[in-house]
Amino acid sequence: MAMKQAATAAIRAFSSSVASQSSPLVRHLHASAGSKKIVGVFYKANEYAAMNPNFVGCVEGSLGIREWLESQGHQYIVTDDKEGLNCELEKHIPDLHVLITTPFHPAYVTAERIKKAKNLELLLTAGIGSDHVDLNAAAAAGLTVAEVTGSNVVSVAEDELMRILILVRNFLPGHHQVIKGEWNVAGIAHRAYDLEGKTIGTVGAGRIGKLLLQRLKPFNCNLLYHDRLKIDPELEKQIGAKFEEDMDAMLPKCDVLVINTPLTDKTRGLFNKERIAKCKKGVLIVNNARGAIMDTEAVVDACNSGHIGGYSGDVWNPQPAPKDHPWRYMPNQAMTPHISGTTIDAQLRYAAGVKDMLDRYFKGQDFPAQNYIVKEGELAPQYR
Amino acid sequence: MAMKQAATAAIRAFSSSVASQSSPLVRHLHASAGSKKIVGVFYKANEYAAMNPNFVGCVEGSLGIREWLESQGHQYIVTDDKEGLNCELEKHIPDLHVLITTPFHPAYVTAERIKKAKNLELLLTAGIGSDHVDLNAAAAAGLTVAEVTGSNVVSVAEDELMRILILVRNFLPGHHQVIKGEWNVAGIAHRAYDLEGKTIGTVGAGRIGKLLLQRLKPFNCNLLYHDRLKIDPELEKQIGAKFEEDMDAMLPKCDVLVINTPLTDKTRGLFNKERIAKCKKGVLIVNNARGAIMDTEAVVDACNSGHIGGYSGDVWNPQPAPKDHPWRYMPNQAMTPHISGTTIDAQLRYAAGVKDMLDRYFKGQDFPAQNYIVKEGELAPQYR
Repeated sequence: MAMKQAATAAIRAFSSSVASQSSPLVRHLHASAGSKKIVGVFYKANEYAAMNPNFVGCVEGSLGIREWLESQGHQYIVTDDKEGLNCELEKHIPDLHVLITTPFHPAYVTAERIKKAKNLELLLTAGIGSDHVDLNAAAAAGLTVAEVTGSNVVSVAEDELMRILILVRNFLPGHHQVIKGEWNVAGIAHRAYDLEGKTIGTVGAGRIGKLLLQRLKPFNCNLLYHDRLKIDPELEKQIGAKFEEDMDAMLPKCDVLVINTPLTDKTRGLFNKERIAKCKKGVLIVNNARGAIMDTEAVVDACNSGHIGGYSGDVWNPQPAPKDHPWRYMPNQAMTPHISGTTIDAQLRYAAGVKDMLDRYFKGQDFPAQNYIVKEGELAPQYR
Repeated sequence: MAMKQAATAAIRAFSSSVASQSSPLVRHLHASAGSKKIVGVFYKANEYAAMNPNFVGCVEGSLGIREWLESQGHQYIVTDDKEGLNCELEKHIPDLHVLITTPFHPAYVTAERIKKAKNLELLLTAGIGSDHVDLNAAAAAGLTVAEVTGSNVVSVAEDELMRILILVRNFLPGHHQVIKGEWNVAGIAHRAYDLEGKTIGTVGAGRIGKLLLQRLKPFNCNLLYHDRLKIDPELEKQIGAKFEEDMDAMLPKCDVLVINTPLTDKTRGLFNKERIAKCKKGVLIVNNARGAIMDTEAVVDACNSGHIGGYSGDVWNPQPAPKDHPWRYMPNQAMTPHISGTTIDAQLRYAAGVKDMLDRYFKGQDFPAQNYIVKEGELAPQYR
C-alpha cells in the first residue's frame, strides 16, 4: 500500500512535468495535457445495433463515450478488424495512446504489437480478464493494464448457474425435440436429474465463484470449493461451502465441476487428460473462465467416451471459435459464443468503468486499486 | 377434519365387510381382500430403458413395483397405448380396479371411460396434477383420485429457474450459433440481460411457487406473488416477496412472469389476448404448470409481435404436442416436452409415493391427507 502511494505520487509529479510526446524509452504512466489517440476494439453489431439503445458494448455503441472523448479533443477510433498485418487495428498501433479491448472479441496484444506501439501507455479491458494481453511484455514496456473488476461478475455467476441447470436437467435434447417436431420424454428423462442433493465443486472461489456459491445455497446441494485461500469464515458458514485444499482430491467427489480461475501460466491446460480422468465418471463441467484452461482434445475425447457427461461454457481457444472447432460437434455440449459477461447490464457497468478510468488517466489520478493487472510495469500479485 | 375421520371409519367398516366384486352402483372405496387389476399408463423408453437402473417412470421401469404387486397376487398391466377405442388401455377399462397415470404422457380419463370402468375404485397420478381426469365425473362415481403431492415440486421449481435464466440471458440463440458454425456475439448480446434487479412475478405461490421464490432470493430481484392467500409472514419476510392481491395489477410490473397455478375451470384460458396485453411489452413468460392455462393462439400472436419477448415451458395443450403445434414454431420459444417433473430423482420419489398409496389401499388405510384430489367422491377444496 505504501509502495503504491509512493509510486502514485512520483507518477503525478512526473506526468505533470512532461509533455505528451512519447519516446521508445520513456512511457507516460499517466496522461499529460494534450490530445490522446484512443482505439477501441469491439464486436460489430450490424443490424442488431439499433435494436437496443443500451447496447453500448459493440462497435456501433462504442461504450457510449465518443461524444465525451471528442468534446475533450481526443481522437477515438473504433473497429472490429483486429487480425493480421493489414487490419484496421494494426494501422493505429504505431501511434495510439490507449487501447480498449474486450474478452468477447479479443484483440490479442502480443509482444510484437507492444514493441510497435511507441506511444502506448494504457491497455484497458472493457470487462474482466486480460489474458489476451502479453502481460510480461506489457510490464517490461512499463505499461498499465487495467480491467473493470467486478463489472460483470454477477452476469457470469448467473450464467454459470444457468449452465449447471441446463446440464443437470438435460434441457437441450428436449428443446431439440421440440424444434424437430418430436415428443420423446424418455429420451430426455433417462438422464435428467434434480440439482438438489448433488455435489458441486468450484475450482476457484474469487468474486465469481463466491457469487455462484451464494446463488447455489437454496438448492440444497453439497458445495465444495478449491482456492489458494479459504474464503472469509463468516461467508463460508453462510454459504455452507466446504474448503478443499487439494484440488485433485476434490475432483472425484463432484457431480458438477465449475471452473472459476483466471487463465495464467499455472492454469493453462490445467484440465488435461490425466486431470479429467480424476473426475467422477459422467461429471458435468461448466467453464465460463477461459477455454485454454482445458486441453481442447481431452475434453472432446472425454465427452465422446461419456467420462464427461456434459460440458457447457462460453469460452473457447481461440476466440472467435473457428467453424471447425471440435467443441461445436462433441456430444452433450451446451456451448455458446463468449457472451456471459456482456449482457446489457454488464455493458453499462463496464462502459461506465472504462469512462471512469479514462477520466482518471486524463487527470493523472489513480484507478480503483482492484482494477490494475499491470500498474506502470508491475504485475498485480495474482498474475505473478 | 372431523368429517374426513368419520368417512374413513365408515369406509373401513364397509370395506372389511364386503367382498371384492363390484357392481355399477356400489364402488369399493378401499380395497378388500382379493386380487386387484392395476393398470399403469406411462411413456415408453425403448432404447433408453436400459441406460439407467433408476429410470422407473417409463413403461419398462413400471415404477419398480411389478414384483411387489405380483407377489401379493395382484395383476399389473403397463402400457403407453392410451388413445382411441382400440388402444390397450381401453381393453382393460371394463375390469380394472386401479389406474395409474402420469401428467407426462397423460391418459385422459373422461366421463365416458369412468362410466365404462365398472370396477374402478382408485385413480393415482404418478407425479402431480390430475387435470387429465374428469374430476367431476370421478367424484360423481364415488372414486378416489390421488397424486403424490410434493414428489416433484423441487424438480419443477428448479426447472422454472433454469427457464427464467435461459430467457433473460438469451441462451438459445447463442447455442444455435455454435451448432451452425457461427460466431456473432451481437446477435445474442443485444437482448441478453442479468436477472439481478429485474421484477419476477409468480401467479400462484403454492409449493412450487414458494420453492421458486426461495431459489430466486440470492439473485437480488424484485419478487412479487399473486395467490388466493398470503404466504406465511415469516417465510414471506425471509424470501422478501411482495403479495399482490390483484393479479391484473401485478402483470404490468413484471419483467418475468411465472405460472404456478393448477389447471381448474377458473384458470383454463386465464392468459388470453386481453390478459397478455396487460403484461409489460417484452415480458418473458415461464409456464411449467399446464398448457391450457394459456390461450394457445394468443401466445403465438404475442411472440410474433414481440409483446411476449420469450416463452418457455414444458406443458402443452394437448400432450403429446402434435407435430404442427404452433408453439414449436413461434419465435423466442424455449420449449421442451413435458419433462420438468420427471427427473430421475422425481421418478424415484413418485414411484415410492404410488407404492405407499397402493399399500395403504390394500390395507384399507387412509392416504396422506394432502395427496387427495377426490376422496371417495368428495373434491378437495382447491378443486371445487
